[in-house]
Amino acid sequence: MLKLLFADRIENWPAYEPALNAALEQAGIAAKLVLPPADPASIDYIIYSPRGPVQDFAAYTRTKAVLNLWAGVERVVGNPTLTQPLCRMVDEGLERGMVEWVTGHVLRAHLDIDFFLTHQDGVWRQTGHVPPLARDRSVVILGIGALGGACATTLAGLGFNVTGWSRTQKTLPGVTCLSGATGLRDALSKAEILVTVLPDTPETTNLLNAETLALLPKGAAILNPGRGTLIDDDALLAALDSGQIAHATLDVFRVEPLPPAHPYWAHPQVTVTPHIAAETRPASAARVIAENIRRFEAGEPPLHLVDRSRGY
Amino acid sequence: MLKLLFADRIENWPAYEPALNAALEQAGIAAKLVLPPADPASIDYIIYSPRGPVQDFAAYTRTKAVLNLWAGVERVVGNPTLTQPLCRMVDEGLERGMVEWVTGHVLRAHLDIDFFLTHQDGVWRQTGHVPPLARDRSVVILGIGALGGACATTLAGLGFNVTGWSRTQKTLPGVTCLSGATGLRDALSKAEILVTVLPDTPETTNLLNAETLALLPKGAAILNPGRGTLIDDDALLAALDSGQIAHATLDVFRVEPLPPAHPYWAHPQVTVTPHIAAETRPASAARVIAENIRRFEAGEPPLHLVDRSRGY
Repeated sequence: MLKLLFADRIENWPAYEPALNAALEQAGIAAKLVLPPADPASIDYIIYSPRGPVQDFAAYTRTKAVLNLWAGVERVVGNPTLTQPLCRMVDEGLERGMVEWVTGHVLRAHLDIDFFLTHQDGVWRQTGHVPPLARDRSVVILGIGALGGACATTLAGLGFNVTGWSRTQKTLPGVTCLSGATGLRDALSKAEILVTVLPDTPETTNLLNAETLALLPKGAAILNPGRGTLIDDDALLAALDSGQIAHATLDVFRVEPLPPAHPYWAHPQVTVTPHIAAETRPASAARVIAENIRRFEAGEPPLHLVDRSRGY
Repeated sequence: MLKLLFADRIENWPAYEPALNAALEQAGIAAKLVLPPADPASIDYIIYSPRGPVQDFAAYTRTKAVLNLWAGVERVVGNPTLTQPLCRMVDEGLERGMVEWVTGHVLRAHLDIDFFLTHQDGVWRQTGHVPPLARDRSVVILGIGALGGACATTLAGLGFNVTGWSRTQKTLPGVTCLSGATGLRDALSKAEILVTVLPDTPETTNLLNAETLALLPKGAAILNPGRGTLIDDDALLAALDSGQIAHATLDVFRVEPLPPAHPYWAHPQVTVTPHIAAETRPASAARVIAENIRRFEAGEPPLHLVDRSRGY
C-alpha cells in the first residue's frame, strides 16, 4: 500500500481527505493518506503546497514525486533540496473558477452594481445609470495563457469588446490580440476595465506602475486575480486617490493574508477578496493527483511535469 | 416632410433627439421631430411611451401609426381611443441589456460578491467562501421567450445548471425546459437562483406568492427584471424575514418610481434597481422606429405590429 503525505495547510485536510480518498478509490489505487509528522523515508508521494509544513525534501528518499496543489510553482521550483519530479496542478475547476470570478467582477464594474448597492436610499435614479452595452465597453486582459485566454473568450462571448495582451503574439477567436511593448501601450490606452492574469516573473514585476497606470483611460477599473507582484501598490493607491483609477478589485497580494493595517482594506475604491479567484477545488484537484499517481506507478508520463529550466 | 410627435417623457428628449435624427437621415426619411403641444391633426407618426403626455389618440386623425418605445404594451393596448396601428419595440439593444443585467446579478449572487463588499474589515476570510462552480449551481428562469431565452442560453454557456420554465413547452440548447403547473413546482424546488422574466398577464399576477416561495430551496436568491406584478410583495417580505429567501434584487415594481417609504428600499436583503435591466437604448431603438416609418411610407408590412386580440 502506497503512503501519501498530505503536506498542505492542516485547515485544508477536512476538505481534501474525502476528496482524495474518493479519487484514489475511483482510480483503483491502494494508498494511505498520512499527515505530518511521518517518517520521511516511508513516503511514496508528497501532496504539496508552499503553505504546508515541508520545506526540505532531502529526507524523502523514497518519494517518487511531489504533486503540487497549486498552479503556480514559483515558491518551490528553485528549492535546492528538491530532487524529485515536481508536477504542478492544472485543475479544470480552477480555470472555471477564474473565469467565473473575472466575468462576475467585470460585469459588476460594467453595470456599476456597487453604485446601486450603496444608493438604497429611496431615490429612484434612472438617468445616467444605464450603462453602455458590453459591445461598447472595452475590456483588456493582460496575460492570455490558459486562464487569461479562457476569460478573454468568455467575455467576448458575452459581447464585450475584448483585447488580450501577451509577451509573444497569440490568436484567440473574437479577441483582438496584441503583444510586445508597443502592444502593451496600445492595450492599456483603451482599457476601461483592465484584468491582469500574468504569471509572476522578473518581467511582470510592477508591470502596473505610475507610468503604465497613467496610460489607462481616466476612471478605469482594475481587476487583479493574477499575482500580487504585478502591481506597484503605492502607485495604484496614488492613482486611485487622484481619480485616474476609479476602482480596483484585488484578489492577490505581495503578502498574504493581506495584513489588517494595509491601506487596501480601508480604501473606499478598493475591494479585497482573499485569493479565491482561482482556488483549487478539492474534488477536481484530487482527480488530477490520483491520475498522476496512477501514471507514475504504471510508468506512464505524468501530467503537468515541471520543466525546472523554464520555471513552470 | 413628415411630422413626428415625440410623446415620451421630456427627460428622454436629449438622448432621443440626436439618435432619431441620425436614424431617420440614415434611412433616407425627410421628417421633422416635434414636441407636445403640437396640433394633433398635423402629426404623421407618434413615437410613444405610456409615461409620455398622450393618453387620448382620438384627435390624431392624420396619424398613420403609434410606435411604442417599450417592449411591453399592456398600458396602451386596451386604450379605446387608439384606432391607429400600434407597433411595439423589439430592440436588440434591449435584449442585450437584459442579458447583461441578469448575467451580472446571477454571478453576483453566485460568487456572494455582496459578502466581500460588506466585509472589507481587515479579516482574511478564505474558508467557506469559495463558491461551488457554476455547473454545481442551479439557476431557474421563469419565462423563456425572446428575453428570458437569451438569458437562459447565456447562463448555460457560462456553465450554470439552467432550467427554463414556460407556459407551453419549449426547447433551448443546453437548458432543461419545463412547462405547465407540475413543471413549475419542479422548477421552483431546485432554484438556488430564480430569475423571473414573464410578461404581465392575468395568469402571471402574484405567481410568486407565499405558497410558491415556500417551494424554493431555503436561502434562494430571486432576481426580478420582468414585471412588478409577478410578485406578491408582502409574501416576499415575509419570506425574506424568515430566511426562506436570502436575497432579492428587484428592477420592476407595481408602482414606479418605487415610493421612498416602500419597505423594499430599507430592507437589508433587497437590492432595488430603477427599471434599468431592459432599458430601451436610444441608438438601437431609433433605428427600429426609422425602419418602421420607412415601411409604412413604402406600404411594406411593419415590424412588431401588435395583435390587439392577443394583447401583444
